[in-house]
Amino acid sequence: MRVVVPYAPDQPKSRLSPVLGPDERVAFARTLRDDVLDALQAAGHDPELLATRSVDCDVPVTVDDRSLSVAVNGVLADSVTTDQPLAVVMADLALATPEALSRLFGATGGVVVAPGLGGGTNALVVREPDFRVDYHGASFLDHRDAAEALGVDCTVVDSHRLAVDVDEPSDLVEVLVHSDGRTADWLREHGFRLDRGNGRVNVRRLDG
Amino acid sequence: MRVVVPYAPDQPKSRLSPVLGPDERVAFARTLRDDVLDALQAAGHDPELLATRSVDCDVPVTVDDRSLSVAVNGVLADSVTTDQPLAVVMADLALATPEALSRLFGATGGVVVAPGLGGGTNALVVREPDFRVDYHGASFLDHRDAAEALGVDCTVVDSHRLAVDVDEPSDLVEVLVHSDGRTADWLREHGFRLDRGNGRVNVRRLDG
Repeated sequence: MRVVVPYAPDQPKSRLSPVLGPDERVAFARTLRDDVLDALQAAGHDPELLATRSVDCDVPVTVDDRSLSVAVNGVLADSVTTDQPLAVVMADLALATPEALSRLFGATGGVVVAPGLGGGTNALVVREPDFRVDYHGASFLDHRDAAEALGVDCTVVDSHRLAVDVDEPSDLVEVLVHSDGRTADWLREHGFRLDRGNGRVNVRRLDG
Repeated sequence: MRVVVPYAPDQPKSRLSPVLGPDERVAFARTLRDDVLDALQAAGHDPELLATRSVDCDVPVTVDDRSLSVAVNGVLADSVTTDQPLAVVMADLALATPEALSRLFGATGGVVVAPGLGGGTNALVVREPDFRVDYHGASFLDHRDAAEALGVDCTVVDSHRLAVDVDEPSDLVEVLVHSDGRTADWLREHGFRLDRGNGRVNVRRLDG
């Protein structure tokens, strides 16, 4: 199965600006991406980046500077046939494990979706050549509707590990609780610690 | 398997006070609870409530007005034997389906944990008689450590549906996107709608 990871290296992770500076966000996004690539390789796949510009990376890189949905739809149009599915996995799934990804890749259905928190789509497997993505807004619902309109089954993968994309400060808690990958190491090296109070746990950053 | 659902009917869901009044939160918590009981029954179980006071409900109710952890530990001490596991499922898992719960109940291990967002523990199956809970703080990590200290396997169930407990306004998005149960109906009847912008989807409430 061809596995594509979209990646935009410039000004990434703006919603983490309350806790990370601009250069830190660039390094953090690269670390997240490498965790995802590691997990995909450990699951037996050969992932490729679909990047908005040329980047230095150990996996093949296709450059397409168009918007996320347009670029992914270009790859879908070029590569999906009934015999050749395509997987699209977001580059910020820090909790992704080979086991969770294998549930995604092993699921049947013309379209397989792993929803993200907040109505998004964190990972897809597309076996229907006419299916197109639209990552804007409540994309999980839109993708489910689009599959239905094409008359193909849409299978939903129920995974906490694939539902967490690291966009907001509260997502850092999930990384520190559930991951021991590069991203968790990076956060600890940069002073982030779990703050265990009542209710949901928070993160705090040690004074530099 | 004995299945217990802790339930505190008084002043529930305080973190929803920005969007729901006190009486609404009481009704909402009851609706959430009934969705969980429905899903457990559809999964083939006979759930019981462990409530802080007498409540009107169609399932058996045990009253224990002590704190959550103390009350659950009382039940664990009384009922878990190597032949008789106990499941503890939180009353606010609006996305729980029979399929997701069956993955929980079907998992092996002395302790099975379904983590909640923010480091919590949303559902447990306990087969080890000496295991005790502590829901304070990062309980997922504490429960995993407690199982390890007892020398029993701790199995983690990777489920988005079981990871979402409805505590905060952003959790209402998950209900409206992923559930068609009573809780989603209740929210729609009370004016809540998805607000589909960029990034994660929000909820808004229509003017009364």
